Amino acid sequence: MDLDQIVENAYFESVSGVRTGDTKTECRELRRYIRDAREIIIPNHSDAKVIAINEVLEEFGLSKAKHLQIHTDACDVSRMPAITKAIMALDICSCDLVIARGRLGIPGSGSMLVILDKKGRILTASLSPPHIIHGKVISEAVRCEMTNALERIGFHKSMEKDEC
Amino acid sequence: MDLDQIVENAYFESVSGVRTGDTKTECRELRRYIRDAREIIIPNHSDAKVIAINEVLEEFGLSKAKHLQIHTDACDVSRMPAITKAIMALDICSCDLVIARGRLGIPGSGSMLVILDKKGRILTASLSPPHIIHGKVISEAVRCEMTNALERIGFHKSMEKDEC
Repeated sequence: MDLDQIVENAYFESVSGVRTGDTKTECRELRRYIRDAREIIIPNHSDAKVIAINEVLEEFGLSKAKHLQIHTDACDVSRMPAITKAIMALDICSCDLVIARGRLGIPGSGSMLVILDKKGRILTASLSPPHIIHGKVISEAVRCEMTNALERIGFHKSMEKDEC
Repeated sequence: MDLDQIVENAYFESVSGVRTGDTKTECRELRRYIRDAREIIIPNHSDAKVIAINEVLEEFGLSKAKHLQIHTDACDVSRMPAITKAIMALDICSCDLVIARGRLGIPGSGSMLVILDKKGRILTASLSPPHIIHGKVISEAVRCEMTNALERIGFHKSMEKDEC
């Protein structure tokens, strides 16, 4: 079952009023999509976040991401900067996955790391407090977010490469 | 400084390329807005989540929320169900805050609790893994998400009522 079928089945459950929550099959297919992704891009101006994200991808046995070096300041002038940044990258560059990190919402709302598939569907995400509250260096904050984004959907570091 | 000014200032910083991240002032104003909110709504069909959220609001000395009892299944047929649910509620009912909990993205992506202001701007949020992964009862998961959504922007339970 691919992601399109997962979404279609869940749609029918929702409109029929019988949906009870995410299933094991859905989570497994979502992990499988990420596991099989070969072209992964990270839109960002500097490369500090890219290095941190790639360290985590390697720890989980996933493909490394490429740096899509673009100016992303314009995304902050939107209601959902992190998601806008990810979608902007997807509209510029074809790929299997986009991993973007930016502000969650209004100024002061902290940050979001979000992972979209090739169609722009949200697969997983992770949030951090504003830097002035958590006080971590940027690379450490991004490492934690990326790890959490994968672990919350059932990835763990000791997984075999072909295991989902 | 109100939220409109906060947003306007950050916009100018972003378009000038001088924005460096969320500021103490922004976080304080965001907390002040939540602290001053009187009309808070929670769109949901059942009331289990409302009870859990109100317990947390009370622990933080914030106003209690009202249950906007509507069918929200239709929101799952969207790309960002939790945010769609919050915006749907805002379009039905005037209020200072909406607190909505629903799916983050694609089926299998787990849940998001999101807090929007009266204009639909995202103030804070919190994420949970899919239920089949975290295994918590729903009320406990919602309590954790609501607590985290407030603490990540600098609220703490021992704050005085007029302190931000």
